[in-house]
Amino acid sequence: MTPPAPPPLRAPADFSVNQMTVKQLPLPELVTACADLGIRGVGLWREPVQEYGIEAAAKLVRGAGLAVTTLCRGGFLTAHDPAERARALADNRAAIDEAATLGTDTLVLVSGGLPAGDQDRDLPAARERVADALADLAPYAADRAVRLAIEPLHPMYAADRCVVSTLTQALDLAERFPADQVGVCADTYHIWWDDQAPTTLTHATTTGRLHALQLADWTTPLPHGALTGRGQLGDGTIDFPHWRTLARSAGYTGPIEVELFNDTLWARDGREVLTETVRRYVAHAC
Amino acid sequence: MTPPAPPPLRAPADFSVNQMTVKQLPLPELVTACADLGIRGVGLWREPVQEYGIEAAAKLVRGAGLAVTTLCRGGFLTAHDPAERARALADNRAAIDEAATLGTDTLVLVSGGLPAGDQDRDLPAARERVADALADLAPYAADRAVRLAIEPLHPMYAADRCVVSTLTQALDLAERFPADQVGVCADTYHIWWDDQAPTTLTHATTTGRLHALQLADWTTPLPHGALTGRGQLGDGTIDFPHWRTLARSAGYTGPIEVELFNDTLWARDGREVLTETVRRYVAHAC
Repeated sequence: MTPPAPPPLRAPADFSVNQMTVKQLPLPELVTACADLGIRGVGLWREPVQEYGIEAAAKLVRGAGLAVTTLCRGGFLTAHDPAERARALADNRAAIDEAATLGTDTLVLVSGGLPAGDQDRDLPAARERVADALADLAPYAADRAVRLAIEPLHPMYAADRCVVSTLTQALDLAERFPADQVGVCADTYHIWWDDQAPTTLTHATTTGRLHALQLADWTTPLPHGALTGRGQLGDGTIDFPHWRTLARSAGYTGPIEVELFNDTLWARDGREVLTETVRRYVAHAC
Repeated sequence: MTPPAPPPLRAPADFSVNQMTVKQLPLPELVTACADLGIRGVGLWREPVQEYGIEAAAKLVRGAGLAVTTLCRGGFLTAHDPAERARALADNRAAIDEAATLGTDTLVLVSGGLPAGDQDRDLPAARERVADALADLAPYAADRAVRLAIEPLHPMYAADRCVVSTLTQALDLAERFPADQVGVCADTYHIWWDDQAPTTLTHATTTGRLHALQLADWTTPLPHGALTGRGQLGDGTIDFPHWRTLARSAGYTGPIEVELFNDTLWARDGREVLTETVRRYVAHAC
């Protein structure tokens, strides 16, 4: 007698996969793989969606019954130069339009680093330029039912990618605006080390400003450039149930997105990685 | 006619060089190079000093009129295992003895990361184990006129090297003990991104707990492993006059140590690097 086949793997209802986790999968294959695994949510990235066509992507994803949990990403709002600032604002308005077309209510923003090449070393001033840009963009987004989610990146990116380094800084920025316009995106990879982040996460949630929650694990050694070493869940040092419980206890009812940037995972079969990610989510984050 | 020779380069009186900056120089050559440049302070590391002999090193440095501004480093106090903890405490007592022999009043402590191999992901508990160890070590150090200086390392080292990631965490730990026993070591490389660090640095200084101030610049991209990319002053994004002025305004009268871990600098002639470091200090940190 052969043993009965195990039941097919089904993703938990709150699981969402960020497109970057399996960027080797073209959008139609990602959508099919999600259907096969019972995945109900997907976080999309602008570049592959633009390549596929915004309207076509919206139709494809909607047709499969997939919710678009976030669009990644707008931001990069720290330039001094007026022409460069104008270009950045226009690009962010385009991102907001794309989010609306895709049917997601959340656009993730990465602030940008110190302006390159002009010896500017003033982080507080750069953060204020981000605030100025948010004042411009938030009403435009609100008119299209899109919320801006400021994502703090790990302090190791403060110079060249994101001057907003802690969840507390991100929330302080968000709180200058209405909660249904500007909130935060909390990613465990960026905040796990921070003893202030748990309190801030709770506060953000109870005040309606936790607009997105993302997971990736912290693994060492960091790769050259520190960009593509976000670990598969369970491979590193982050206590995911701790973060999940914090958010859920405070009333967060939204999806939880797994977003991995990882050269080793990208080199593997995308469907296999997606299946593994669902299994790891069940084993390490539920 | 030949133009008159420029006056010889003399280091500012508050400049100290950490031995690691020019680790290619054997201790006697370092001492000679310091004398030639008018450098009055040096931060030493345990391993090269042990290799040379503690007593011999003390005699050599004292004979040259060099002040030992710090000894690096004790710490690594996060183990669970009783035998491993006992070994770590014994090693730290040895480090305190070495500091006393070398005539420095400051032993820099790096806390240690999460214990390897046991799936422990609890950062707050690891920090408490550091506090427990400090309670053991601080009186021993005080009896030998040595102060323990807790050094927060950049959050990118939280998992595998140092669970104390911010100056505020370090000061919170220190404040459980008398100020003349336990304080902090502030290194710009580790704290420059942190919007809370300026206030904490001022508070630490006015309460007599800034036991050491170190400089290194932040440069990108980070190298693989993120350990040996500390930039030469002026090559990166850190505003040194800002940090120097904060400390001096709050009453810090101690030396300022330049501590670079940098493969490129280590591959060059050590005397040339030391001369460059003094020039950069004058140009970028005064």
